[in-house]
Amino acid sequence: MADLTPALKLADDGLANSLDRLFELLRIPSISTDPAYKADCRRAGDWLVAELTSLGFDARLDDTPGHPMVLAKDHSAGASTPHVLFYGHYDVQPVDPLELWEAPPFEPALKEIAPGKTVITGRGTSDDKGQLMTFVEACRALKAAHGQLPCRVTILFEGEEESGSPSLKPYLEAHAGDLKADYALVCDTSMWNPETPAIAAALRGLVGEEVMIEAADRDLHSGMFGGAAANPIRVLSTILAGLHDETGRVTLPGFYDGVEETPSQIKASWETLGETSEKFLGEVGLSVPSGEKGRSVLELVWARPTAEINGITGGYTGDGFKTVIAAKASAKVSFRLVGSQDPQAIRKAFRAYVEASLPADCKAHFHEHGASPAIQLPYDSALLQSAKAALSDEWPKPAVIIGMGGSIPIVGDFQRMLGMDSLLVGFGLSDDRIHSPNEKYALTSFHKGIRSWIRILDAIGQQS
Amino acid sequence: MADLTPALKLADDGLANSLDRLFELLRIPSISTDPAYKADCRRAGDWLVAELTSLGFDARLDDTPGHPMVLAKDHSAGASTPHVLFYGHYDVQPVDPLELWEAPPFEPALKEIAPGKTVITGRGTSDDKGQLMTFVEACRALKAAHGQLPCRVTILFEGEEESGSPSLKPYLEAHAGDLKADYALVCDTSMWNPETPAIAAALRGLVGEEVMIEAADRDLHSGMFGGAAANPIRVLSTILAGLHDETGRVTLPGFYDGVEETPSQIKASWETLGETSEKFLGEVGLSVPSGEKGRSVLELVWARPTAEINGITGGYTGDGFKTVIAAKASAKVSFRLVGSQDPQAIRKAFRAYVEASLPADCKAHFHEHGASPAIQLPYDSALLQSAKAALSDEWPKPAVIIGMGGSIPIVGDFQRMLGMDSLLVGFGLSDDRIHSPNEKYALTSFHKGIRSWIRILDAIGQQS
Repeated sequence: MADLTPALKLADDGLANSLDRLFELLRIPSISTDPAYKADCRRAGDWLVAELTSLGFDARLDDTPGHPMVLAKDHSAGASTPHVLFYGHYDVQPVDPLELWEAPPFEPALKEIAPGKTVITGRGTSDDKGQLMTFVEACRALKAAHGQLPCRVTILFEGEEESGSPSLKPYLEAHAGDLKADYALVCDTSMWNPETPAIAAALRGLVGEEVMIEAADRDLHSGMFGGAAANPIRVLSTILAGLHDETGRVTLPGFYDGVEETPSQIKASWETLGETSEKFLGEVGLSVPSGEKGRSVLELVWARPTAEINGITGGYTGDGFKTVIAAKASAKVSFRLVGSQDPQAIRKAFRAYVEASLPADCKAHFHEHGASPAIQLPYDSALLQSAKAALSDEWPKPAVIIGMGGSIPIVGDFQRMLGMDSLLVGFGLSDDRIHSPNEKYALTSFHKGIRSWIRILDAIGQQS
Repeated sequence: MADLTPALKLADDGLANSLDRLFELLRIPSISTDPAYKADCRRAGDWLVAELTSLGFDARLDDTPGHPMVLAKDHSAGASTPHVLFYGHYDVQPVDPLELWEAPPFEPALKEIAPGKTVITGRGTSDDKGQLMTFVEACRALKAAHGQLPCRVTILFEGEEESGSPSLKPYLEAHAGDLKADYALVCDTSMWNPETPAIAAALRGLVGEEVMIEAADRDLHSGMFGGAAANPIRVLSTILAGLHDETGRVTLPGFYDGVEETPSQIKASWETLGETSEKFLGEVGLSVPSGEKGRSVLELVWARPTAEINGITGGYTGDGFKTVIAAKASAKVSFRLVGSQDPQAIRKAFRAYVEASLPADCKAHFHEHGASPAIQLPYDSALLQSAKAALSDEWPKPAVIIGMGGSIPIVGDFQRMLGMDSLLVGFGLSDDRIHSPNEKYALTSFHKGIRSWIRILDAIGQQS
């Protein structure tokens, strides 16, 4: 093991400058799902290329049919050292409802929210700009301290993670030679709690689907036609209400094919984390799990599949009242997957269910929004164990191995397309409000995140 | 009976000028439900006051807590003549979705949509500016031909009909002395078909209600919380889906209290109109009635109560996809009433049903949007019979007595507060797209509507 003292000290002493750089990136409104922000996405990519180039990386912006990829390499550690691919994303979620933000989402700031507890506020602070910059700043400190990195590093930042990553697979395929490494490092996850770092070893998959129900060829007056004309909102509500039975299980035929019961020793290790429904849900003003009955809250979010309605709209939704029967109504629906559930089979089952539920005169239109299967990583790899040790050195409490409720499709793509497992380490916290107004990232997460990557990269370098 | 030839000729010769005046009124975007158009509503009222004053009416604009009332009198026919109160409304519905309009909604125009079939296009052409102007222009022709009207006429135009008429009852109460007449004339209804005028004798009531379901105290990431956190859109969908049973009946306890079966001779007279589901619904791209099974389409829209969802919104509804579990979701729901159904009892039953359906952690918030009971007018009055004869003289086919699916709450208010029945005559057509994009009013409706009121006012004058 190299002496890490100089690099860690550089990370500490340079924190203010690291924050300045992060704020520059946060100020760019790189909302990938909204075409209005296309130029901003490219600007974020350009900024990262310039930053990595100044660090001595061989960096470039690669065009795609969507937003561009940032690809950067520093292999000065030499061919005998391990090769890691670091992945992050520079795009962010939309910011609506804007009126709920306490400060403008793209004007990052430091805010002391409790004595000694400072956070960085703004869209993308936690998901994922703050996280990816922990790695960039760790590379900066290591290079400044030792003149080179402890292992070969390739960096891939994409700009479409929040909109289904449509360009990613073709890009991985076209650039497999550049991207294939010994393993991937992915920084887009959370700590177990503010004192306890976590490594995620199981991730749920995702199927995104939009359905639009159409009835009459125009909006109708509910006085003139009410009672006679089909109402697409009523039809849609009935279809959505039928997705779950009374025990909280999803009703689609075949939905649970490929879902396995979590091994009892894994469930037992989760029990030791001391999480309760009241605690987990209490942070967001809830208390009772709404999913399948008879399962712990961690099992529900880490190891059970779901159907959720993410958005719905139809008819008149402005101020006041309009006695209209809408011509159409639509909903965005997503399914979280576990085990070996087949995303395409589930999409097909959903569409078949909707079609079979349609009353006379109604049509359904579907629009696909991405699909990825669930991921299960090996619990016993040398990489996992050495990363666990490195993290445990940095933080007050030892690192834990956990599941993840959210999908990180790239991990599956790395596994299937490049034959490469991933190490999932991130420094988000459960109250970071990612995807919501007032997103934040703890200053501690950023600072100790940088220090954590210094330790992990060093540990990886020792494996050569 | 006076010689009507001069007045009818003046209506014919003056049609182009009548249209110019109507277009001036149509250009004012008097959308009452949207606070952004408050000044425009007042402008429409001012315009009408000026117009009626120039006709010799004693006219004024009366302020209310909402939009102002237009009140105008011409009693020069003398105290021995019948006194009628004419009612119309100068406010209009919102215009969204704006992109579906073929021409800007507040730039009225004449358009020949088939050889010899010309329509007036724009918001409010049929509901209700075009209709109320038929009466104003009839008064103009009668005064020009005879120097005075055949009976005493008071005119009331309100500006809040499309937003629940919150100021109307207090106004009727405060001005009962001015407004109490022998009967009211209301011009806000439709013809049976383009050749057959209609007098509406039964109107459904309306209860408007908005419900908002709230769960977590913020929007959540569906990966992190999906399966554990209550989803308000799912809760709302389930509640809305439960409003009807499989036979199309509304499930609220006590909902059908006060609903009587339509007398068989009335149903028989409706049968003779030759209306089929295919014909009635075919005009809007539908074919199968969606309401209670085993009832004719006319019975469904004229004589049966309904529950409709007029709008729904929650979560992410923009382009692309956002894996969010929304903090709240809301719907606008309305009930059409018949017979002696009690609006307040139905509102209470709906709220009780929603509260009883709420799962743990969810709250419901309600907002009231107006209530009016159903109306049944006497089929055998002298007024109804003489109006029927006057209309039959003007149009190619004899007038018919019909029911109405929509609510005109003012008719109930006139009955209860001023002890005055109403005569409901209007010249709208079923394809006028009222409340929808591309609203229109047939030029024939406007022209022969003016001529119809000349005949009806004359007939009323004969009753003195």
